[in-house]
Amino acid sequence: MADASKPVIVLVRPQLGENIGKAARAMLNFGLAEMRLVAPRDGWPNPSAGPAAAGADVVLEHAQVFDTLAEAVSDCANVYATTVRKRGVTKPVVTPEEAAREVHETARTTGARSAYVFGPERSGLETEDVALARAILTVPINPEFASLNLAQAVILCAYEWSKGAVASGELAQPTQEELLPPAPQEELEGLIGHFEQLLEPKNYFWPETRAAANRLTLRNLLTKPAWNHLEVRTLRGVLSALGNERRPRS
Amino acid sequence: MADASKPVIVLVRPQLGENIGKAARAMLNFGLAEMRLVAPRDGWPNPSAGPAAAGADVVLEHAQVFDTLAEAVSDCANVYATTVRKRGVTKPVVTPEEAAREVHETARTTGARSAYVFGPERSGLETEDVALARAILTVPINPEFASLNLAQAVILCAYEWSKGAVASGELAQPTQEELLPPAPQEELEGLIGHFEQLLEPKNYFWPETRAAANRLTLRNLLTKPAWNHLEVRTLRGVLSALGNERRPRS
Repeated sequence: MADASKPVIVLVRPQLGENIGKAARAMLNFGLAEMRLVAPRDGWPNPSAGPAAAGADVVLEHAQVFDTLAEAVSDCANVYATTVRKRGVTKPVVTPEEAAREVHETARTTGARSAYVFGPERSGLETEDVALARAILTVPINPEFASLNLAQAVILCAYEWSKGAVASGELAQPTQEELLPPAPQEELEGLIGHFEQLLEPKNYFWPETRAAANRLTLRNLLTKPAWNHLEVRTLRGVLSALGNERRPRS
Repeated sequence: MADASKPVIVLVRPQLGENIGKAARAMLNFGLAEMRLVAPRDGWPNPSAGPAAAGADVVLEHAQVFDTLAEAVSDCANVYATTVRKRGVTKPVVTPEEAAREVHETARTTGARSAYVFGPERSGLETEDVALARAILTVPINPEFASLNLAQAVILCAYEWSKGAVASGELAQPTQEELLPPAPQEELEGLIGHFEQLLEPKNYFWPETRAAANRLTLRNLLTKPAWNHLEVRTLRGVLSALGNERRPRS
Protein backbone atom coordinates (compact mmCIF):
# COMPACT_ATOMS: atom_id res chain seq x y z
CA MET A 1 0.00 0.00 0.00
CA ALA A 2 1.54 3.25 -1.14
CA ASP A 3 2.09 6.09 1.32
CA ALA A 4 -0.62 8.55 0.29
CA SER A 5 1.50 11.54 1.18
CA LYS A 6 4.02 10.62 -1.53
CA PRO A 7 3.02 12.17 -4.82
CA VAL A 8 3.21 10.27 -8.08
CA ILE A 9 5.62 11.76 -10.63
CA VAL A 10 4.09 11.59 -14.11
CA LEU A 11 6.23 12.21 -17.19
CA VAL A 12 4.11 12.90 -20.26
CA ARG A 13 5.63 11.86 -23.59
CA PRO A 14 9.22 12.07 -22.31
CA GLN A 15 11.72 12.14 -25.16
CA LEU A 16 15.09 10.92 -23.90
CA GLY A 17 15.63 7.86 -21.75
CA GLU A 18 18.52 9.70 -20.15
CA ASN A 19 16.15 12.34 -18.84
CA ILE A 20 13.80 9.71 -17.45
CA GLY A 21 16.76 8.26 -15.58
CA LYS A 22 17.78 11.66 -14.27
CA ALA A 23 14.26 12.34 -13.10
CA ALA A 24 14.27 9.00 -11.23
CA ARG A 25 17.52 9.97 -9.54
CA ALA A 26 16.11 13.36 -8.58
CA MET A 27 13.00 11.73 -7.10
CA LEU A 28 14.73 9.11 -5.01
CA ASN A 29 17.05 11.67 -3.44
CA PHE A 30 13.97 12.92 -1.66
CA GLY A 31 12.29 9.60 -1.06
CA LEU A 32 9.84 9.56 -3.98
CA ALA A 33 9.76 6.27 -5.84
CA GLU A 34 6.58 6.10 -7.90
CA MET A 35 7.03 7.17 -11.51
CA ARG A 36 4.41 6.91 -14.24
CA LEU A 37 5.17 7.36 -17.92
CA VAL A 38 2.63 8.45 -20.50
CA ALA A 39 3.52 7.34 -24.03
CA PRO A 40 7.31 7.65 -23.73
CA ARG A 41 8.63 8.53 -27.19
CA ASP A 42 11.12 5.68 -27.46
CA GLY A 43 9.05 3.03 -25.69
CA TRP A 44 9.77 1.42 -22.36
CA PRO A 45 12.03 0.11 -20.94
CA ASN A 46 14.67 2.40 -22.38
CA PRO A 47 18.33 1.32 -22.15
CA SER A 48 19.51 4.92 -21.71
CA ALA A 49 17.50 5.43 -18.53
CA GLY A 50 19.42 3.08 -16.23
CA PRO A 51 22.88 4.64 -16.45
CA ALA A 52 21.45 8.17 -15.95
CA ALA A 53 19.55 7.04 -12.86
CA ALA A 54 22.87 6.60 -11.05
CA GLY A 55 21.54 3.85 -8.83
CA ALA A 56 17.88 4.82 -8.63
CA ASP A 57 16.97 1.66 -10.53
CA VAL A 58 14.18 0.78 -8.16
CA VAL A 59 12.23 3.76 -9.47
CA LEU A 60 12.68 2.72 -13.11
CA GLU A 61 11.88 -0.92 -12.45
CA HIS A 62 8.53 -0.04 -10.95
CA ALA A 63 7.64 2.67 -13.44
CA GLN A 64 4.21 2.13 -14.96
CA VAL A 65 3.37 3.04 -18.54
CA PHE A 66 0.03 4.50 -19.67
CA ASP A 67 -1.41 5.51 -23.01
CA THR A 68 -3.02 8.68 -21.76
CA LEU A 69 -2.53 11.17 -18.97
CA ALA A 70 -6.13 10.64 -17.87
CA GLU A 71 -5.37 6.98 -17.15
CA ALA A 72 -2.10 7.80 -15.44
CA VAL A 73 -3.73 10.09 -12.89
CA SER A 74 -7.08 8.34 -12.56
CA ASP A 75 -6.52 7.52 -8.87
CA CYS A 76 -5.13 10.91 -7.90
CA ALA A 77 -7.09 13.62 -6.14
CA ASN A 78 -4.73 16.57 -6.68
CA VAL A 79 -3.22 16.80 -10.12
CA TYR A 80 -0.62 19.54 -10.70
CA ALA A 81 0.42 20.45 -14.23
CA THR A 82 3.90 21.93 -14.21
CA THR A 83 4.46 24.70 -16.72
CA VAL A 84 7.11 27.34 -17.09
CA ARG A 85 4.95 29.96 -18.63
CA LYS A 86 1.53 30.83 -17.49
CA ARG A 87 -1.16 29.46 -19.72
CA GLY A 88 -4.35 31.27 -20.46
CA VAL A 89 -6.30 28.95 -18.25
CA THR A 90 -8.45 29.80 -15.30
CA LYS A 91 -6.82 27.53 -12.77
CA PRO A 92 -5.02 28.34 -9.58
CA VAL A 93 -1.27 28.82 -10.03
CA VAL A 94 0.79 27.47 -7.16
CA THR A 95 4.48 27.36 -6.26
CA PRO A 96 6.24 24.08 -5.43
CA GLU A 97 5.98 25.12 -1.80
CA GLU A 98 2.22 25.65 -1.93
CA ALA A 99 1.67 22.45 -3.88
CA ALA A 100 3.71 20.48 -1.35
CA ARG A 101 1.63 21.84 1.48
CA GLU A 102 -1.56 20.83 -0.32
CA VAL A 103 -0.23 17.35 -1.10
CA HIS A 104 0.57 16.69 2.54
CA GLU A 105 -2.63 18.29 3.73
CA THR A 106 -4.78 16.24 1.35
CA ALA A 107 -3.04 13.02 2.36
CA ARG A 108 -3.28 13.81 6.04
CA THR A 109 -6.91 14.82 6.10
CA THR A 110 -8.34 12.47 3.49
CA GLY A 111 -5.78 9.80 2.62
CA ALA A 112 -5.91 10.75 -1.07
CA ARG A 113 -2.89 10.85 -3.37
CA SER A 114 -1.56 13.58 -5.60
CA ALA A 115 0.35 13.72 -8.86
CA TYR A 116 2.92 16.12 -10.33
CA VAL A 117 2.73 16.10 -14.11
CA PHE A 118 5.70 17.09 -16.30
CA GLY A 119 5.62 17.57 -20.06
CA PRO A 120 8.03 16.59 -22.82
CA GLU A 121 11.50 18.12 -22.51
CA ARG A 122 11.27 20.36 -25.54
CA SER A 123 7.71 21.57 -25.59
CA GLY A 124 6.20 21.12 -22.16
CA LEU A 125 2.62 20.09 -21.52
CA GLU A 126 -0.06 20.62 -24.15
CA THR A 127 -3.13 22.65 -23.33
CA GLU A 128 -5.12 19.41 -23.29
CA ASP A 129 -2.81 17.99 -20.62
CA VAL A 130 -3.11 21.11 -18.51
CA ALA A 131 -6.89 20.91 -18.81
CA LEU A 132 -6.80 17.65 -16.84
CA ALA A 133 -5.15 19.25 -13.85
CA ARG A 134 -6.71 20.98 -10.90
CA ALA A 135 -3.91 23.50 -10.64
CA ILE A 136 -0.84 24.76 -12.42
CA LEU A 137 2.50 24.50 -10.69
CA THR A 138 5.07 27.08 -11.72
CA VAL A 139 8.51 27.65 -10.29
CA PRO A 140 9.10 31.39 -9.91
CA ILE A 141 12.09 31.89 -12.13
CA ASN A 142 14.38 34.50 -13.66
CA PRO A 143 12.23 36.00 -16.43
CA GLU A 144 15.36 36.72 -18.46
CA PHE A 145 16.73 33.19 -18.23
CA ALA A 146 14.16 30.50 -17.74
CA SER A 147 15.91 27.24 -18.50
CA LEU A 148 14.94 24.54 -16.04
CA ASN A 149 15.41 21.06 -17.39
CA LEU A 150 13.12 18.16 -16.60
CA ALA A 151 15.17 16.64 -13.78
CA GLN A 152 15.65 20.06 -12.20
CA ALA A 153 11.94 20.75 -12.22
CA VAL A 154 11.37 17.32 -10.69
CA ILE A 155 13.98 17.81 -8.01
CA LEU A 156 12.59 21.16 -6.89
CA CYS A 157 9.13 19.65 -6.49
CA ALA A 158 10.48 16.58 -4.70
CA TYR A 159 12.65 18.71 -2.44
CA GLU A 160 9.73 20.90 -1.39
CA TRP A 161 7.59 17.85 -0.78
CA SER A 162 10.31 16.28 1.38
CA LYS A 163 10.25 19.19 3.80
CA GLY A 164 6.73 18.25 4.81
CA ALA A 165 7.71 14.60 5.11
CA VAL A 166 10.43 15.56 7.54
CA ALA A 167 8.09 17.76 9.50
CA SER A 168 5.27 15.26 9.69
CA GLY A 169 7.62 12.72 11.23
CA GLU A 170 8.06 15.05 14.16
CA LEU A 171 4.61 16.52 14.58
CA ALA A 172 1.48 14.51 15.06
CA GLN A 173 -1.39 16.65 13.91
CA PRO A 174 -5.06 15.92 14.33
CA THR A 175 -6.87 14.83 11.19
CA GLN A 176 -10.04 16.27 9.83
CA GLU A 177 -11.93 13.15 9.03
CA GLU A 178 -15.01 14.91 7.85
CA LEU A 179 -13.29 16.44 4.84
CA LEU A 180 -13.66 14.37 1.72
CA PRO A 181 -10.88 14.49 -0.86
CA PRO A 182 -11.51 15.62 -4.41
CA ALA A 183 -13.03 12.75 -6.38
CA PRO A 184 -10.57 10.61 -8.29
CA GLN A 185 -9.92 11.74 -11.84
CA GLU A 186 -11.94 8.90 -13.35
CA GLU A 187 -15.11 10.08 -11.61
CA LEU A 188 -14.45 13.53 -12.94
CA GLU A 189 -14.06 12.07 -16.43
CA GLY A 190 -17.39 10.34 -15.97
CA LEU A 191 -19.02 13.64 -15.10
CA ILE A 192 -17.47 15.45 -18.05
CA GLY A 193 -18.52 12.62 -20.34
CA HIS A 194 -22.06 12.83 -19.02
CA PHE A 195 -22.20 16.57 -19.77
CA GLU A 196 -20.89 16.01 -23.27
CA GLN A 197 -23.28 13.19 -23.94
CA LEU A 198 -26.24 15.40 -23.06
CA LEU A 199 -24.94 18.46 -24.86
CA GLU A 200 -23.99 16.73 -28.08
CA PRO A 201 -27.55 16.17 -29.34
CA LYS A 202 -28.38 19.77 -28.41
CA ASN A 203 -25.71 20.94 -30.86
CA TYR A 204 -23.88 22.63 -28.05
CA PHE A 205 -20.54 21.77 -29.66
CA TRP A 206 -21.61 23.01 -33.04
CA PRO A 207 -20.12 24.40 -35.28
CA GLU A 208 -17.38 21.85 -35.66
CA THR A 209 -14.65 24.50 -35.73
CA ARG A 210 -15.48 25.56 -32.18
CA ALA A 211 -16.07 22.09 -30.76
CA ALA A 212 -12.58 21.45 -29.40
CA ALA A 213 -12.38 24.85 -27.70
CA ASN A 214 -15.85 24.43 -26.22
CA ARG A 215 -14.97 21.04 -24.82
CA LEU A 216 -11.81 22.44 -23.29
CA THR A 217 -13.68 25.33 -21.69
CA LEU A 218 -16.20 22.92 -20.23
CA ARG A 219 -13.48 20.63 -18.92
CA ASN A 220 -11.59 23.45 -17.25
CA LEU A 221 -14.73 24.73 -15.66
CA LEU A 222 -15.67 21.32 -14.27
CA THR A 223 -12.14 20.52 -13.10
CA LYS A 224 -11.78 23.70 -11.07
CA PRO A 225 -14.19 22.93 -8.19
CA ALA A 226 -12.32 19.86 -6.87
CA TRP A 227 -15.69 18.31 -6.09
CA ASN A 228 -15.62 15.25 -3.88
CA HIS A 229 -17.17 11.86 -4.57
CA LEU A 230 -20.55 12.80 -3.13
CA GLU A 231 -20.70 16.06 -4.99
CA VAL A 232 -19.89 14.39 -8.28
CA ARG A 233 -22.59 11.82 -7.59
CA THR A 234 -25.10 14.58 -6.87
CA LEU A 235 -24.23 16.30 -10.12
CA ARG A 236 -24.59 13.06 -12.02
CA GLY A 237 -28.07 12.86 -10.53
CA VAL A 238 -28.78 16.39 -11.67
CA LEU A 239 -27.66 15.52 -15.18
CA SER A 240 -29.73 12.35 -15.23
CA ALA A 241 -32.76 14.38 -14.19
CA LEU A 242 -32.10 16.96 -16.88
CA GLY A 243 -31.65 14.22 -19.46
CA ASN A 244 -34.91 12.53 -18.57
CA GLU A 245 -38.19 13.55 -20.06
CA ARG A 246 -39.63 13.47 -16.59
CA ARG A 247 -38.53 11.61 -13.48
CA PRO A 248 -41.36 9.30 -12.45
CA ARG A 249 -42.84 9.99 -9.03
CA SER A 250 -42.39 6.41 -7.98
CA MET B 1 28.17 47.36 -7.52
CA ALA B 2 26.83 43.89 -6.85
CA ASP B 3 23.51 43.39 -5.13
CA ALA B 4 24.53 42.31 -1.63
CA SER B 5 21.54 40.05 -1.25
CA LYS B 6 22.80 37.82 -4.07
CA PRO B 7 25.18 35.19 -2.75
CA VAL B 8 28.36 34.27 -4.54
CA ILE B 9 28.55 30.67 -5.76
CA VAL B 10 32.02 29.26 -5.16
CA LEU B 11 33.11 26.01 -6.79
CA VAL B 12 36.19 24.55 -5.14
CA ARG B 13 38.46 22.48 -7.41
CA PRO B 14 35.65 21.58 -9.83
CA GLN B 15 36.62 18.68 -12.07
CA LEU B 16 34.53 18.82 -15.23
CA GLY B 17 33.90 21.91 -17.31
CA GLU B 18 30.50 20.48 -18.11
CA ASN B 19 29.53 20.62 -14.46
CA ILE B 20 30.71 24.21 -14.16
CA GLY B 21 28.43 25.05 -17.09
CA LYS B 22 25.50 23.22 -15.54
CA ALA B 23 26.03 25.05 -12.27
CA ALA B 24 26.00 28.37 -14.15
CA ARG B 25 22.71 27.42 -15.79
CA ALA B 26 21.23 26.43 -12.45
CA MET B 27 22.28 29.74 -10.89
CA LEU B 28 20.96 32.00 -13.60
CA ASN B 29 17.56 30.35 -13.53
CA PHE B 30 17.15 31.96 -10.15
CA GLY B 31 18.89 35.22 -10.91
CA LEU B 32 22.34 34.46 -9.47
CA ALA B 33 25.19 35.46 -11.76
CA GLU B 34 28.38 35.65 -9.72
CA MET B 35 30.49 32.50 -9.85
CA ARG B 36 33.95 32.09 -8.38
CA LEU B 37 36.23 29.17 -9.16
CA VAL B 38 38.98 27.94 -6.85
CA ALA B 39 41.74 26.07 -8.70
CA PRO B 40 39.57 24.40 -11.36
CA ARG B 41 41.22 21.11 -12.27
CA ASP B 42 41.39 21.72 -16.01
CA GLY B 43 42.15 25.43 -15.86
CA TRP B 44 39.95 28.28 -17.00
CA PRO B 45 38.30 29.00 -19.37
CA ASN B 46 37.16 25.47 -20.09
CA PRO B 47 35.65 24.75 -23.53
CA SER B 48 33.21 22.19 -22.11
CA ALA B 49 31.54 24.71 -19.84
CA GLY B 50 29.84 26.86 -22.47
CA PRO B 51 27.65 24.22 -24.16
CA ALA B 52 26.50 22.89 -20.78
CA ALA B 53 25.53 26.36 -19.63
CA ALA B 54 22.71 26.37 -22.19
CA GLY B 55 22.82 30.11 -22.63
CA ALA B 56 24.04 31.18 -19.21
CA ASP B 57 27.26 32.42 -20.78
CA VAL B 58 27.15 35.67 -18.89
CA VAL B 59 27.85 33.75 -15.69
CA LEU B 60 30.86 31.96 -17.18
CA GLU B 61 32.28 35.08 -18.80
CA HIS B 62 32.36 36.89 -15.49
CA ALA B 63 33.58 33.95 -13.42
CA GLN B 64 36.64 34.84 -11.35
CA VAL B 65 39.41 32.38 -10.59
CA PHE B 66 41.23 32.15 -7.27
CA ASP B 67 44.06 30.02 -5.93
CA THR B 68 42.54 29.44 -2.53
CA LEU B 69 39.09 29.36 -0.99
CA ALA B 70 40.19 31.95 1.59
CA GLU B 71 40.83 34.45 -1.20
CA ALA B 72 37.61 33.57 -2.98
CA VAL B 73 35.43 34.36 0.01
CA SER B 74 37.49 37.16 1.53
CA ASP B 75 34.74 39.75 0.99
CA CYS B 76 31.87 37.57 2.23
CA ALA B 77 30.29 37.78 5.65
CA ASN B 78 28.41 34.48 5.68
CA VAL B 79 30.21 31.52 4.20
CA TYR B 80 28.29 28.27 3.89
CA ALA B 81 30.13 25.03 3.22
CA THR B 82 27.81 22.59 1.51
CA THR B 83 28.26 18.97 2.47
CA VAL B 84 26.11 15.91 2.08
CA ARG B 85 27.14 14.28 5.29
CA LYS B 86 27.61 16.22 8.47
CA ARG B 87 31.24 16.53 9.37
CA GLY B 88 32.60 16.18 12.85
CA VAL B 89 32.92 19.94 13.20
CA THR B 90 31.40 22.19 15.78
CA LYS B 91 29.57 24.52 13.44
CA PRO B 92 25.92 25.22 13.00
CA VAL B 93 24.27 22.99 10.40
CA VAL B 94 21.60 24.76 8.37
CA THR B 95 19.17 23.79 5.62
CA PRO B 96 19.06 25.68 2.29
CA GLU B 97 15.96 27.43 3.64
CA GLU B 98 17.66 28.62 6.79
CA ALA B 99 20.75 29.71 4.92
CA ALA B 100 18.67 31.70 2.44
CA ARG B 101 16.92 33.49 5.28
CA GLU B 102 20.27 34.41 6.81
CA VAL B 103 21.68 35.60 3.48
CA HIS B 104 18.79 37.99 2.93
CA GLU B 105 18.79 39.09 6.53
CA THR B 106 22.52 39.80 6.52
CA ALA B 107 22.29 41.80 3.31
CA ARG B 108 19.32 43.75 4.56
CA THR B 109 20.70 44.62 7.97
CA THR B 110 24.39 45.06 7.18
CA GLY B 111 24.82 45.19 3.41
CA ALA B 112 27.27 42.29 3.60
CA ARG B 113 27.47 39.47 1.08
CA SER B 114 27.35 35.74 1.52
CA ALA B 115 28.86 32.76 -0.27
CA TYR B 116 27.77 29.19 -0.90
CA VAL B 117 30.77 26.92 -1.28
CA PHE B 118 30.62 23.63 -3.18
CA GLY B 119 33.34 20.99 -3.30
CA PRO B 120 34.72 18.84 -6.12
CA GLU B 121 32.18 16.54 -7.75
CA ARG B 122 33.65 13.29 -6.57
CA SER B 123 34.89 14.00 -3.07
CA GLY B 124 33.16 17.11 -1.77
CA LEU B 125 34.84 19.72 0.40
CA GLU B 126 37.91 18.90 2.44
CA THR B 127 37.96 19.44 6.18
CA GLU B 128 40.23 22.45 5.61
CA ASP B 129 37.64 24.02 3.32
CA VAL B 130 34.86 23.43 5.78
CA ALA B 131 36.97 25.02 8.50
CA LEU B 132 36.78 28.33 6.62
CA ALA B 133 33.03 28.44 6.71
CA ARG B 134 30.80 29.90 9.38
CA ALA B 135 28.20 27.21 8.93
CA ILE B 136 27.57 23.93 7.18
CA LEU B 137 24.74 23.74 4.70
CA THR B 138 23.20 20.32 4.27
CA VAL B 139 20.19 19.36 2.18
CA PRO B 140 18.03 16.92 4.16
CA ILE B 141 18.02 13.92 1.88
CA ASN B 142 16.96 10.27 1.61
CA PRO B 143 19.49 8.47 3.82
CA GLU B 144 19.17 5.39 1.63
CA PHE B 145 19.84 7.24 -1.61
CA ALA B 146 21.92 10.37 -1.31
CA SER B 147 23.02 11.23 -4.81
CA LEU B 148 22.79 14.96 -5.46
CA ASN B 149 25.10 16.18 -8.19
CA LEU B 150 26.82 19.54 -8.16
CA ALA B 151 24.31 21.39 -10.33
CA GLN B 152 21.42 19.98 -8.31
CA ALA B 153 22.94 21.12 -5.04
CA VAL B 154 23.50 24.55 -6.57
CA ILE B 155 19.96 24.79 -7.91
CA LEU B 156 18.37 23.92 -4.57
CA CYS B 157 20.38 26.63 -2.83
CA ALA B 158 19.66 29.16 -5.58
CA TYR B 159 15.97 28.27 -5.56
CA GLU B 160 15.66 28.77 -1.80
CA TRP B 161 17.50 32.06 -2.04
CA SER B 162 15.18 33.18 -4.84
CA LYS B 163 12.14 32.90 -2.62
CA GLY B 164 13.40 35.81 -0.60
CA ALA B 165 14.12 37.69 -3.82
CA VAL B 166 10.62 37.04 -5.08
CA ALA B 167 9.29 38.45 -1.85
CA SER B 168 11.33 41.59 -2.45
CA GLY B 169 10.11 41.86 -6.03
CA GLU B 170 13.27 40.94 -7.95
CA LEU B 171 12.01 37.80 -9.63
CA ALA B 172 8.78 37.24 -11.43
CA GLN B 173 6.28 35.48 -9.27
CA PRO B 174 3.39 33.61 -10.82
CA THR B 175 0.59 35.91 -9.89
CA GLN B 176 -3.04 35.17 -10.06
CA GLU B 177 -3.80 38.47 -11.68
CA GLU B 178 -5.00 36.75 -14.79
CA LEU B 179 -7.47 34.86 -12.74
CA LEU B 180 -10.79 36.54 -12.63
CA PRO B 181 -12.45 36.97 -9.25
CA PRO B 182 -15.43 34.84 -8.34
CA ALA B 183 -18.60 36.11 -9.97
CA PRO B 184 -20.77 38.39 -7.85
CA GLN B 185 -23.35 36.63 -5.76
CA GLU B 186 -26.25 37.74 -7.93
CA GLU B 187 -24.76 35.93 -10.92
CA LEU B 188 -24.39 32.84 -8.78
CA GLU B 189 -28.02 33.19 -7.72
CA GLY B 190 -28.97 33.45 -11.36
CA LEU B 191 -27.14 30.22 -12.07
CA ILE B 192 -28.70 28.40 -9.15
CA GLY B 193 -32.11 29.68 -10.18
CA HIS B 194 -31.54 28.45 -13.71
CA PHE B 195 -30.67 24.97 -12.42
CA GLU B 196 -33.76 24.90 -10.23
CA GLN B 197 -36.00 26.13 -13.00
CA LEU B 198 -34.86 23.27 -15.24
CA LEU B 199 -34.92 20.65 -12.52
CA GLU B 200 -38.32 21.54 -11.12
CA PRO B 201 -40.35 20.14 -14.04
CA LYS B 202 -38.19 17.00 -13.97
CA ASN B 203 -39.38 16.39 -10.40
CA TYR B 204 -35.82 16.56 -9.16
CA PHE B 205 -36.94 18.19 -5.92
CA TRP B 206 -39.67 15.70 -5.31
CA PRO B 207 -40.81 14.42 -2.81
CA GLU B 208 -41.65 17.65 -1.00
CA THR B 209 -40.07 16.49 2.27
CA ARG B 210 -36.66 16.27 0.63
CA ALA B 211 -36.92 19.42 -1.46
CA ALA B 212 -35.27 21.82 1.00
CA ALA B 213 -32.33 19.48 1.62
CA ASN B 214 -31.87 18.88 -2.09
CA ARG B 215 -31.84 22.58 -2.83
CA LEU B 216 -29.27 23.13 -0.13
CA THR B 217 -27.03 20.37 -1.48
CA LEU B 218 -27.23 21.84 -4.95
CA ARG B 219 -26.49 25.33 -3.68
CA ASN B 220 -23.45 24.19 -1.71
CA LEU B 221 -22.12 22.29 -4.65
CA LEU B 222 -22.50 25.25 -7.01
CA THR B 223 -21.07 27.72 -4.52
CA LYS B 224 -17.89 25.76 -3.89
CA PRO B 225 -16.13 26.31 -7.24
CA ALA B 226 -15.95 30.11 -6.96
CA TRP B 227 -16.56 30.29 -10.69
CA ASN B 228 -15.84 33.63 -12.28
CA HIS B 229 -18.11 35.72 -14.48
CA LEU B 230 -17.08 33.95 -17.70
CA GLU B 231 -17.45 30.51 -16.21
CA VAL B 232 -20.91 31.29 -14.90
CA ARG B 233 -21.85 32.59 -18.34
CA THR B 234 -20.57 29.40 -19.95
CA LEU B 235 -22.60 27.29 -17.56
CA ARG B 236 -25.69 29.36 -18.25
CA GLY B 237 -25.13 28.54 -21.91
CA VAL B 238 -24.83 24.85 -21.06
CA LEU B 239 -28.10 24.99 -19.16
CA SER B 240 -29.85 26.84 -21.98
CA ALA B 241 -28.68 24.17 -24.38
CA LEU B 242 -29.88 21.40 -22.09
CA GLY B 243 -33.23 23.14 -21.69
CA ASN B 244 -33.77 23.54 -25.40
CA GLU B 245 -35.31 20.89 -27.52
CA ARG B 246 -32.50 21.49 -29.99
CA ARG B 247 -30.29 24.49 -30.54
CA PRO B 248 -30.89 25.81 -34.03
CA ARG B 249 -27.86 25.70 -36.31
CA SER B 250 -28.34 29.30 -37.28
